[in-house]
Amino acid sequence: MGVATVQDIRAAIERGEWRKPTSGLAAGYTQANVVILPKQYAFDFLLFCGRNDRPCPVIDVCEAGVTAPPIAGPSADIRTQIPRYRIYRHGELERESEHIRDLYTADMVTFLLGCSFTFEQDLLDSGVPVRHIELDRNVPMYITNRECRPAGIFSGPMVVSMRPIPAALVAKATAITARYRRAHGAPIHVGDPAALGIKDLQRVDFGDAPEIRAGEAPVFWACGVTPQMALQRAKPDLVITHAPGYMFITDIRDKDLAEA
Amino acid sequence: MGVATVQDIRAAIERGEWRKPTSGLAAGYTQANVVILPKQYAFDFLLFCGRNDRPCPVIDVCEAGVTAPPIAGPSADIRTQIPRYRIYRHGELERESEHIRDLYTADMVTFLLGCSFTFEQDLLDSGVPVRHIELDRNVPMYITNRECRPAGIFSGPMVVSMRPIPAALVAKATAITARYRRAHGAPIHVGDPAALGIKDLQRVDFGDAPEIRAGEAPVFWACGVTPQMALQRAKPDLVITHAPGYMFITDIRDKDLAEA
Repeated sequence: MGVATVQDIRAAIERGEWRKPTSGLAAGYTQANVVILPKQYAFDFLLFCGRNDRPCPVIDVCEAGVTAPPIAGPSADIRTQIPRYRIYRHGELERESEHIRDLYTADMVTFLLGCSFTFEQDLLDSGVPVRHIELDRNVPMYITNRECRPAGIFSGPMVVSMRPIPAALVAKATAITARYRRAHGAPIHVGDPAALGIKDLQRVDFGDAPEIRAGEAPVFWACGVTPQMALQRAKPDLVITHAPGYMFITDIRDKDLAEA
Repeated sequence: MGVATVQDIRAAIERGEWRKPTSGLAAGYTQANVVILPKQYAFDFLLFCGRNDRPCPVIDVCEAGVTAPPIAGPSADIRTQIPRYRIYRHGELERESEHIRDLYTADMVTFLLGCSFTFEQDLLDSGVPVRHIELDRNVPMYITNRECRPAGIFSGPMVVSMRPIPAALVAKATAITARYRRAHGAPIHVGDPAALGIKDLQRVDFGDAPEIRAGEAPVFWACGVTPQMALQRAKPDLVITHAPGYMFITDIRDKDLAEA
């Protein structure tokens, strides 16, 4: 689908012609994490995101019952255009699904949150190596000793992703990612993992263990798993998300997300 | 009250010892615009602010019934520590008041929004003249032809403030204010007022007419009157705000608001 438009790709997903992870699809367009909640929880969740905007950067919100994200996909349908959904009841995964037509009532509110996929491409294009992509692994992620600012029913620890960066390129990696405020932004920590409560970088909480080479510093960014942990802790009666890796492809170009 | 703490100043306001505008009080500490609404409107208003974060930068939110802003004033009381409140019913000003103890029920949500007072001090400290301060006037403000992104019941035009800046200092003024994302950030427009639908800079919509000197460009920033216009248009049954100029003084230092 090299020359397909974003709209074409989303239509193909809707028709069931693409049921794989979205990594590499629609290159240059921002992919988003998806959280869908009943309206009664929407204020608390939006406030949680606002108070913790490094791990939870809001790209767009669909008001209750609205199926097209007004900024990120005015022609999209959030009920059918994600390749795989996860449905949670009271904090427990109930099932996965290929659409949510039946569940997306007039009471449901959709949140699209930024993802570090966006800045990783810019890092690569700028000559900053991204190890887990080189090795075709998942990024290593860790639960830290930093608590998010709670909001209403939502609370939890900040989760970070880690990328080993050659010492001389840390400043460049910082400058590049700082421009992507809606995709986690600048690193929250550089260096000693113990300061974040991480005892051993090889013992990841999510993703794959890292390979850190001589002369590289561990660089930590806030991670989109953070809101997932807050959702699991809060246990709303219903939460719908994308399945990990099966993201919503927006109309927003990565380069337009910079400084947005 | 030169050596008084922020807490002392707010306590003096609560005791009725300060009923004047807050300009110049607690120098170096961020002052905030205040909007207080019943919870039924809180999600829409928070979303409106998020979608229009240049005119409506959120500094802090008190969840329903909470009287102390958790980030901006954990020891403050939002019901008594603003020198003058305004109470609106269905979009109309009903009265002003020196406290809102009776009105601030468990259903009320408080929003604190950033204010350009914050960056004006940095401009002055950096050698960028701020004309309306030099002349002891109010800043000139204009209703533009740019519509805010609507959210739920809230919509309206963007209002801007204008400061004439010597051409050689426009870049410096931009760089300084860009750091204060929670105080309106960088200019949204430099130069020709007609592009914003402003026909005559001398005919202000709010504030005082400007004095523009040879070699100066008009520079426009998003303005905190924007959410007030959206509130008046939406006509919620109850809205409480600070009276213009009678702001909430936060615990946050202006310099800490930069890059926040």
